[in-house]
Formats: sequence, C-alpha cells, structure tokens
Amino acid sequence: MTADIDFYFDFSSPYGYFASTGIDALAAKYGRKVKWHPVLLGVVFKVSGAQPLTMVPLKGDYSIHDFKRTARFHGIEFNFPNVFPIASQNAARAVLWLQANAGEDKARSFAKAVYRAFFVEGKDISDLANLQAVMTQEGLDVARLLDAINQPAIKEQLKQEVEQAVKNGVFGSPYIVVDGEPFWGFDRFDQLEATLKSGKI
Amino acid sequence: MTADIDFYFDFSSPYGYFASTGIDALAAKYGRKVKWHPVLLGVVFKVSGAQPLTMVPLKGDYSIHDFKRTARFHGIEFNFPNVFPIASQNAARAVLWLQANAGEDKARSFAKAVYRAFFVEGKDISDLANLQAVMTQEGLDVARLLDAINQPAIKEQLKQEVEQAVKNGVFGSPYIVVDGEPFWGFDRFDQLEATLKSGKI
Repeated sequence: MTADIDFYFDFSSPYGYFASTGIDALAAKYGRKVKWHPVLLGVVFKVSGAQPLTMVPLKGDYSIHDFKRTARFHGIEFNFPNVFPIASQNAARAVLWLQANAGEDKARSFAKAVYRAFFVEGKDISDLANLQAVMTQEGLDVARLLDAINQPAIKEQLKQEVEQAVKNGVFGSPYIVVDGEPFWGFDRFDQLEATLKSGKI
Repeated sequence: MTADIDFYFDFSSPYGYFASTGIDALAAKYGRKVKWHPVLLGVVFKVSGAQPLTMVPLKGDYSIHDFKRTARFHGIEFNFPNVFPIASQNAARAVLWLQANAGEDKARSFAKAVYRAFFVEGKDISDLANLQAVMTQEGLDVARLLDAINQPAIKEQLKQEVEQAVKNGVFGSPYIVVDGEPFWGFDRFDQLEATLKSGKI
C-alpha cells in the first residue's frame, strides 16, 4: 500500500517540531507522501486530561532537558523558546487555508517556517506580527492570509479537524498514522520506519 | 567516571520490564554496574498528578498497543497481563530485603523473575501465593522472606526509598541516572548508550 501518511502536530510541540524536520524524507524513502494535520493540543488535552509537559510537577524540568538533549542527539537545530507553551490556532488556521487555496507544498513550506521561527529563532508565533513576518518571508499574500484566518469558516474548519483527530485517536504531538497503524512520539520513528519498510512489525 | 548506574523501576510498569531485560548488559558493555531501585509509581503519581497510562482517556488503548509492538520490535518476550495495573509493594519490599540480606545478585535475579512471572507468564504478583512461587523457584528462604516483607522496618524503608527517589526527580518507570544525567523511558536507551559511550551528549 502507498496511501499517504497522516502527520498530526501542534505548533507548540517540540517533539512535533523534531518530527516535522524528518517526516517527509522518511516517507519519501518508502515512496510515500505525508498529509500534514495541524491540531490544537489544548483542545485534545481537555478530552485526555493531560497538560503541557513542562507544567507537570517533576516531569517539567526533565522535559525541557530532554527537548534539548534529543535535539542534540539527532542533530536538529533547536532553542527552547522563552515563551512556552503558546496558542497555535492562528498558525494552524493559516496552514489549513493554504492547503485549500495554495496547495500542499506551500502549506508545508509555511508550516516548516513557522516551526523554525518558534523553535530555532525563538519568535512567539502566537503574536500576529511574528506570524506575518513568516508569511512575508514565504512570499505569501499577507493581507489575504491574515484576513482569511479571521473568518468564521476557517475557525470552524479547524475546530472540526481537531474534533475529527480526537475521534481518530490523536492524543498528542507528533501522532502519525500509517495504513491504520498509529505512532505517538518522535521516539517512535524507529518503529515507524520498520513499519514503512516491512508493512508490519 | 565509572560510578554505578541508578535504575528506578516499578514492577507494574511494562516499560520498566523492557528496560530490566537489557540494562545490566548495556551497563557492562561500558564497564558499569547497575543499582536496582524498586519504587512505587502510585506514590510518585500522587506528587506528579499522573495516572497509569492504560487509564488515561485516548492514550489507554494506544499504550497497550505500544507495549506489544515495542516488545516485538526489540525481540522481548511479553504478554500483556489480564490483571493490570497491580500493587507492587510486596515484590518491592522483597527486593530491598534481599539486597540487604542476600546480596545484589540474588536480589536482581529475584527482580527479573518477578517481572517475568508478571509480564511473560501473566501471574498477578500482587498475590502473595504467586510471589511465593517465584521465591521458591529462585531457591530463596520463603518463610523468612514472607515474614520479612511484613515487618514495619521494611515497609518504612520502602516508603523512605520512594520519597528519596521523588526528591531525586524520579517521576516514572524506567528512570535511569548516569553521573547525574537522567533518562526517562525505555525509548531513551539510545541516548543512554551514547552518554555511556562518550560521557556527554
């Protein structure tokens, strides 16, 4: 089977960012494409009862240490942002609008640039001015995109996409589905690759 | 440095079991020994606000799927027990008593046998009859050990060991510390090995 791989991520998720740097190349190696699904962990966590890793007692300090060490171990550029976590709905809505109106490639390029602005350059991408700078850098029609992400239609679409993700079992970021097989976490890329390679592990 | 590696685990933790099957060999490869620390996640979770993975909405079903797939991927014998999670304090107390009175080797061998009884043979090791069977199989003085784990002194010792573990930052199982560097999860064995190899990653 060569169906697309589903890649669910939140722009506020460091492990989602790590996954975003490698998922397309990994998929391509096995003749697959990736469908990128921006989601909002804040909504998902209301269902699962979870909270941002860094806010969990004991686990919080470790998680920041682990973000940095994991990035070093895998050779991924990363700087833990001063403002964290952040609201990611504007960036998510922009990706959805671009997917429908500018194509998957432009949407994916924008998503990668947003992740980079936040997790490499430390720009708070919940701030519209910072998000606008990424749009400009990506050569997008800024005025049209800023207007689009404020429309009720795109807000409703994101709400429905997140609800559908939860129905599909998504409870974290990254969450990847290959032919019905779910993988939660950047640290499951080894099992993900084995599955892409052999069909089943 | 060649200080002992600290290995914290709960007998009710599948990922703790996976780690237990490889931690000694991994340490030995780099000239290290392992100090095994049985802990009680139930007590730790009261501090961190966490709950057993399988009881978390959405994450529960995935986690059981992940236990099985992770075991297959790493070639570890595993059968998800019918009764899960279980209270692990009796087994933990027995390990502490054996460490003090029969030596690390016998304590480690018993710990591995307890994990195997639970996660391979499906025996509920919170049941004293099943725990007794493991003691017999390990050639231990069953009457003496059963008496010892009922004494206030060993109960107090386990309580203090768990409190100390929480003070040391332990919030899950497995939790491994090498020269002050913490690793949470069987899926950090790659980073753990890199650290053992090079000293720092």
